[in-house]
Amino acid sequence: MTTPLAGITVLDFGQIFQGPYATMLMAKAGADVIKIEPPGGEPLRRRVIATGGDTTLPIAMLNANKRAVTLNLKSDLGKDLLKQMVAKADVLLENFSPGTLDGLGVGYDVLKQVNPRLVYATGTGFGISGPDRDNLAMDFTIQAASGIMSITGDPDGPPMKAGPTLVDFMGGIHLYAAVMTALLQRTTTGQGQLVEVAMQETVYPSLASSYDYYLRTGKVPPRAGNRQAGLASAPYNAFQTKDGWVAIHVVTEGHWQNLLRAMGRADLLDDPRFSTNPARTENMEATEALVTAWTIGLGKAEVVATAKRYKIPVAPVRNAIEVMNDPHMHERGMLQRVDHPSLGSVVLPNSPLRLHGSDRVDPVPSPLLGQHNADVYGGWLGLDVAELKRVGAI
Amino acid sequence: MTTPLAGITVLDFGQIFQGPYATMLMAKAGADVIKIEPPGGEPLRRRVIATGGDTTLPIAMLNANKRAVTLNLKSDLGKDLLKQMVAKADVLLENFSPGTLDGLGVGYDVLKQVNPRLVYATGTGFGISGPDRDNLAMDFTIQAASGIMSITGDPDGPPMKAGPTLVDFMGGIHLYAAVMTALLQRTTTGQGQLVEVAMQETVYPSLASSYDYYLRTGKVPPRAGNRQAGLASAPYNAFQTKDGWVAIHVVTEGHWQNLLRAMGRADLLDDPRFSTNPARTENMEATEALVTAWTIGLGKAEVVATAKRYKIPVAPVRNAIEVMNDPHMHERGMLQRVDHPSLGSVVLPNSPLRLHGSDRVDPVPSPLLGQHNADVYGGWLGLDVAELKRVGAI
Repeated sequence: MTTPLAGITVLDFGQIFQGPYATMLMAKAGADVIKIEPPGGEPLRRRVIATGGDTTLPIAMLNANKRAVTLNLKSDLGKDLLKQMVAKADVLLENFSPGTLDGLGVGYDVLKQVNPRLVYATGTGFGISGPDRDNLAMDFTIQAASGIMSITGDPDGPPMKAGPTLVDFMGGIHLYAAVMTALLQRTTTGQGQLVEVAMQETVYPSLASSYDYYLRTGKVPPRAGNRQAGLASAPYNAFQTKDGWVAIHVVTEGHWQNLLRAMGRADLLDDPRFSTNPARTENMEATEALVTAWTIGLGKAEVVATAKRYKIPVAPVRNAIEVMNDPHMHERGMLQRVDHPSLGSVVLPNSPLRLHGSDRVDPVPSPLLGQHNADVYGGWLGLDVAELKRVGAI
Repeated sequence: MTTPLAGITVLDFGQIFQGPYATMLMAKAGADVIKIEPPGGEPLRRRVIATGGDTTLPIAMLNANKRAVTLNLKSDLGKDLLKQMVAKADVLLENFSPGTLDGLGVGYDVLKQVNPRLVYATGTGFGISGPDRDNLAMDFTIQAASGIMSITGDPDGPPMKAGPTLVDFMGGIHLYAAVMTALLQRTTTGQGQLVEVAMQETVYPSLASSYDYYLRTGKVPPRAGNRQAGLASAPYNAFQTKDGWVAIHVVTEGHWQNLLRAMGRADLLDDPRFSTNPARTENMEATEALVTAWTIGLGKAEVVATAKRYKIPVAPVRNAIEVMNDPHMHERGMLQRVDHPSLGSVVLPNSPLRLHGSDRVDPVPSPLLGQHNADVYGGWLGLDVAELKRVGAI
């Protein structure tokens, strides 16, 4: 066996979450990923350095299996170093504001002259064209602009963001996907190209049920709490147990019939108020009251175990600590406890992309700022690293 | 120019959202995607057929540019038809429950004998191994099990799901990414392989700030409302204006100083309660009160325009109708108004994967159930379609 990206070299200007996630997946697929930071560190690193540290858990999660160098792109020699690396690389990935590298004189139009086989990937909030191009974009502001917040939260409450930074990661995995697509195309054309992902565009399709609601009703899609976004499915909600919450989503009529049996309410099997999904949707509150009457008297684990026995889609609402210690994900090797030189024993993820005909790479802890300057500038490019440092190029 | 997946044939058993999103992206990248449904339609289709229709907006969004056939995998002839197609295809993608095609005798172990170059992609909730393998998984139950709900919503309220089905789409784009990676590897090995994505694993990294919070404090990561998940950034919140909400996320000290100027509060530039992010985090409520005092007196559009002028990351909270009609995404060609034979004039998305050195494919409306049976079984395989129908194989 082998790794899918063996022999591929990636110049990684990723910062915060979006870019680093894309290149972490490349590193875990066997690419040689060189994380390039300004001399003070990328924003996530700069923030922790300001408080006396060098690494946080997110840095460790997203930069495992990479090498790290510093590079001063404001210096002419720094720009020349970049071109020397580009000449030997396959991919350059960045998630700066649109036009940042162009403004420094080392944008795609320049770098493709250096290496026409280069795949240049840029991740932004709104894209590199169009009237909103220069709107500043972070996970949170895209959650607002993309409609996510408008349909998240309680119907009577304020708009609410999704708690995790799902938009940054949607951007990151789309960026990874775009790069793979371009590398695949390169195997036939021999040419690289510019690839682009806008975070706002990556989340558009995930509101499908809300657009559907609008098409069916003509009304503004509401915040539906824990109900189905289009209010077209029941029971679909979070239900309280004696000691926590469970999520129940009845998809088929078979699930519903099984749920009635599990609840000891087989007497309702033929009740027209509940016997089809359209009927249950019509009688949503009564349907949910039936389910609550069952869950409220049981422990969370008991509801989940019973539902599993009856083949009903139910899951416990788990907190982040439970998730980090999930025996299932540890057994599958998605999560691993790793001894990190800066952080000690921490749980780190592997790639969720599992290629069963390929080797998985062993985890290597995330590097310190500039840890591989000698390795990359000395060993790979054959330059005098002390001199590069002295003149402020790295 | 050309399309990246020209010449690639995909057998698409995708259902609902996860699988169909992955293959929609392949179709938009130029692959020949054949959507294969049981004679009654995939679950999303079956539900709309039951109410007298044939297509919903989500079906139209996720199945554009595909062909559609029916196939009865419970018939021996149906299984043989699948093998005939596999012999000529590059990719088979499914998001059935784990082991479904194995149970029918046409799992990967069988199909790889038919075509060793086949990339077989399976998308599930929890993966195809491990103790939780057979837990039933939908977007909502994975939101519960993966910790998303535990950190979404008001600190004083119940756990809350993210409104959009972000988990299904995270699964789908990871599945696309895994297939591209395997196709790329195939260009060197000549062999296909089994690739696997578990939705639960795809969202793990997006909770990075919450795991970080736990590592820093030893406490269960809370629901933070619209604040930063690790409660380590301020101002980061939704703020009310005269006519709606805006999301403000100050990332750098420069943003904060600009915000003070925009608010007419340059007098606070040196105030130690607010002059660094750690100080503002310490004084989070006072910091937010300052911002609210500014936003509450203005219209949403005025806050956004001012913030843009002062280069502060701010966005309006928009509803789904505003998003569908977003001039920026329409101008960029991400959204297009298309005349759909079943639905009339609807807004459909293109692929958020933009490869600037490739052609984009023109939109083709999603097919009806079995619309291309003659085309595929007659034209491609050279068989007698009427006979296949008569014996119940399709």
